[in-house]
Amino acid sequence: MAEVMLKPGERIDQLYGADIKIIQSANVFSFSLDAVLLADFAKPDRTRRGLTVDLCAGNGAVGLFFSHQTKGPIKLVELQPALADMAERSVSLNELTNQIDVLNMDLADAPTVIKQDSASVVTCNPPYFVDEPQSQKNPNDHYAIARHELTTNLEQVVAISAKLLKMTGHAYFVFRPDRFLEMMATLQKHRLMPKRVQFVYPKPGREANMFLVDAIKDGKPGGLKILPPLLVADDQGDYIGHVHDLLYGNQAAK
Amino acid sequence: MAEVMLKPGERIDQLYGADIKIIQSANVFSFSLDAVLLADFAKPDRTRRGLTVDLCAGNGAVGLFFSHQTKGPIKLVELQPALADMAERSVSLNELTNQIDVLNMDLADAPTVIKQDSASVVTCNPPYFVDEPQSQKNPNDHYAIARHELTTNLEQVVAISAKLLKMTGHAYFVFRPDRFLEMMATLQKHRLMPKRVQFVYPKPGREANMFLVDAIKDGKPGGLKILPPLLVADDQGDYIGHVHDLLYGNQAAK
Repeated sequence: MAEVMLKPGERIDQLYGADIKIIQSANVFSFSLDAVLLADFAKPDRTRRGLTVDLCAGNGAVGLFFSHQTKGPIKLVELQPALADMAERSVSLNELTNQIDVLNMDLADAPTVIKQDSASVVTCNPPYFVDEPQSQKNPNDHYAIARHELTTNLEQVVAISAKLLKMTGHAYFVFRPDRFLEMMATLQKHRLMPKRVQFVYPKPGREANMFLVDAIKDGKPGGLKILPPLLVADDQGDYIGHVHDLLYGNQAAK
Repeated sequence: MAEVMLKPGERIDQLYGADIKIIQSANVFSFSLDAVLLADFAKPDRTRRGLTVDLCAGNGAVGLFFSHQTKGPIKLVELQPALADMAERSVSLNELTNQIDVLNMDLADAPTVIKQDSASVVTCNPPYFVDEPQSQKNPNDHYAIARHELTTNLEQVVAISAKLLKMTGHAYFVFRPDRFLEMMATLQKHRLMPKRVQFVYPKPGREANMFLVDAIKDGKPGGLKILPPLLVADDQGDYIGHVHDLLYGNQAAK
């Protein structure tokens, strides 16, 4: 295990399911269950050697967790220097500098440094909330940018994903059900055909609060599959089943 | 209980959850779980006195099952004379002739006899399968028409539903996930905004094989809700939970 410097307020958390250590900071950004589920939902190409790009990479959680699924290179694109720096150090901490590159840049510029039509997989956990004048934003800029569409938006994220993907490459997103129809329409507008959707339910009897989608570039229309529901926790709020395994590893599984 | 004549091959089945008897025929048409779930998913307007129209009514299952939810009139539109006749006799059998009208006609002509912008609720269990030259169809015409888009299609069903509904009226459909995106796009094209979706799963760990959608005429975009998953049966294929109650009544519930 490599040694890295921690900055004030930072800690190292472990995701047991993927055996990854990740630098977190309550002041700046912490990864959420969304990232864990997205990294698990995404699948590498058959060769497991193709390029993976993670947009809106934050502190690198999705890319780091996904690294155990693929032998191919992974590029993390993150706008905020503080987060990109955390991601960079987590890459070192896990001795993944040969596999993972962190690009501290606006995702809009990603196609200038990553070849168009070159990625097998693009993953993205985009900001969920439309930036409306009346919307309450987190006073912490790091969180506000991650949650609200301040520096990018769904349309742009999808357009850039499509640009980077090769034909028949897969785009994987995690997003909120209240914008599900907008996501489906935006994907199709940008040549990304939704093929598999999984809804995530926080507890039994509750509405879905998240969904995962797998879309294929230039895939043919029709044939959408709705995967079995993913239930996160039991009535008491304890993580169960697959989600429990992802967070705590199979060893600790109930 | 009124007496009605049964034709050769016909039998009377009972849906215990709704306390409805319904004339069925294996030769002509039998209602399926789809109809039971649709009639349960649909909700009357607040007054419970508005007009309900059921398109592609078949042997009347959806309208008959829905009748215990509303005091308002229900109009069943069915193209096939043999099925409309069965529906008519089931209406008599349940002594619902004051509430339910059966219209034996092409749904395309429904707006000539049902006032446009007049319905509070439209329900429809449309044919699921696109009529492609190579598609295998049931040699029994009654079944083929009910299952394949031979005499109508999704676009027409949705367009007619929208025409019959008053503003803020609700359209309820049951359909298949592989055409989910097409349904969502078609609804929105015809001023019907999807607001609630429920996916139906045949057994634990399986993909959804059905979905229910509630769309509001001239509803505003966004805010889609994905209801808790509806699981039909356990691993052994025995009906469970809400579905069991619908079919066998609460008394017989596990």
